[in-house]
Amino acid sequence: MNFIKAIESSWEDNNSLLCVGLDPDLNKIPAHIRKMDEPIFEFNRAIIDATGDLVCAYKPQIAYYSPSRAEQQLEKTIEYIHMNHPGIPVILDAKRGDIGSTADMYAKEAFERYQADAVTVNPYMGGDTLEPFLKYKDKGVAILCRTSNPGARDIQDLTSGGEKIYRIIAAKASTAWNYNGNVILVVGATYPDELMEVRAIVGDMPLLVPGIGAQGGDVEKAVKNGVDSKGAGMIINSSRGIIYAGAGKDFAEAARVAAVDLRDEINKHR
Amino acid sequence: MNFIKAIESSWEDNNSLLCVGLDPDLNKIPAHIRKMDEPIFEFNRAIIDATGDLVCAYKPQIAYYSPSRAEQQLEKTIEYIHMNHPGIPVILDAKRGDIGSTADMYAKEAFERYQADAVTVNPYMGGDTLEPFLKYKDKGVAILCRTSNPGARDIQDLTSGGEKIYRIIAAKASTAWNYNGNVILVVGATYPDELMEVRAIVGDMPLLVPGIGAQGGDVEKAVKNGVDSKGAGMIINSSRGIIYAGAGKDFAEAARVAAVDLRDEINKHR
Repeated sequence: MNFIKAIESSWEDNNSLLCVGLDPDLNKIPAHIRKMDEPIFEFNRAIIDATGDLVCAYKPQIAYYSPSRAEQQLEKTIEYIHMNHPGIPVILDAKRGDIGSTADMYAKEAFERYQADAVTVNPYMGGDTLEPFLKYKDKGVAILCRTSNPGARDIQDLTSGGEKIYRIIAAKASTAWNYNGNVILVVGATYPDELMEVRAIVGDMPLLVPGIGAQGGDVEKAVKNGVDSKGAGMIINSSRGIIYAGAGKDFAEAARVAAVDLRDEINKHR
Repeated sequence: MNFIKAIESSWEDNNSLLCVGLDPDLNKIPAHIRKMDEPIFEFNRAIIDATGDLVCAYKPQIAYYSPSRAEQQLEKTIEYIHMNHPGIPVILDAKRGDIGSTADMYAKEAFERYQADAVTVNPYMGGDTLEPFLKYKDKGVAILCRTSNPGARDIQDLTSGGEKIYRIIAAKASTAWNYNGNVILVVGATYPDELMEVRAIVGDMPLLVPGIGAQGGDVEKAVKNGVDSKGAGMIINSSRGIIYAGAGKDFAEAARVAAVDLRDEINKHR
């Protein structure tokens, strides 16, 4: 699968810009699932079964697997998506970044061990640290640009030579770093003005947009400011707002209802 | 163990500023070890047995474990150090960074699952993303400041308000972010001028200094520019230059010789 082509197809096939974040917290998943042998995988499988026709992508956050030694359940989750929804790309949210020889290993972790179709990476260490990811031409590389958290301002909003850092990242991402055409950018829905600015810089490059739902991003503003020239171009992630929509035995149905609602609300503003 | 106190003790007890990076690459470790059931752990154990009296810290790089599903061997390695060299702190090199709720999980990964005494983190996402790590008062938080790779210049050297980004990070790290007194900074040996600048900003804060050995950093310049007011204050890492000093059955003895040489060369310039 080529990530960029896959995401363009899934936007269209499922008429959806919604990405569901698979961030399974053992303290929050329903009690009857928690008792199972592989509770994280079983939780994810139920969410995937309930939402596979509603999303353009899934985004498992590796930090919700590693503290509880659930790497194998993450592998199984990604494999399950590929087997059962072969058109839906999986973005591994890992925010990796290190010197070249180490970044090689992180790229192997994401693309070879986990078979992810894309991975999130941190640009602070510079362009050479992105190359080991970028050289996987068919994989997507989602570079942090303007993140969704309050502290995003601390570094990303500093101004250098009249340009804010996140704008400098956006410019590099759409030129120097995009030699294989596989770069996308992470821009939080919680900052719609910055989202509009980044869209103006990067043309029709896909944007991965977290911050809707629990983090408080406004759907209408995010969509109006973030869509590309074809009314698509966004991978709008919601994690907690979908996967914890219900807490009982009907949690998967509740997740489906929440996913339909959010997909439709997004589509209303495209 | 309190990380800052532990590192101050190990500098003195072992008369060493040397940190050995445990970055075991299955393609580079000796053939007779590669055949064992737990080759990564066995390789590390031999290196640790050969160098435990020569170092101030060990720094396993998690990227050398995760692609080959060797998380359990990383756990065993850290446990082995704690059991056999109880005074030597372990810095997990992971360069994590994410929004608060996710950073909570990464802090659990480093400090609770792996029982690391310190972890490296990336500041690009801002101060709120560091808090989940900083709140572990007895653990060290090694914030990336000026890294050792060529691309470090891309973002870290941008100037904002007359100050370069890495200087802004150094200033925040020694004031706003150091409310629990557990911050240290990562500054590459490959940039001795920047090392001197950061030392001037942060007073006697410990610095984690990669870039010696395979990356080409000059020991004399790094030490002269990086030591604190007591001639210590540095955790000087070498990975490949020590652990791959030999490739045969005597690899551990070769690692010991390389570690003695580097420790002594560092001490000569303090």
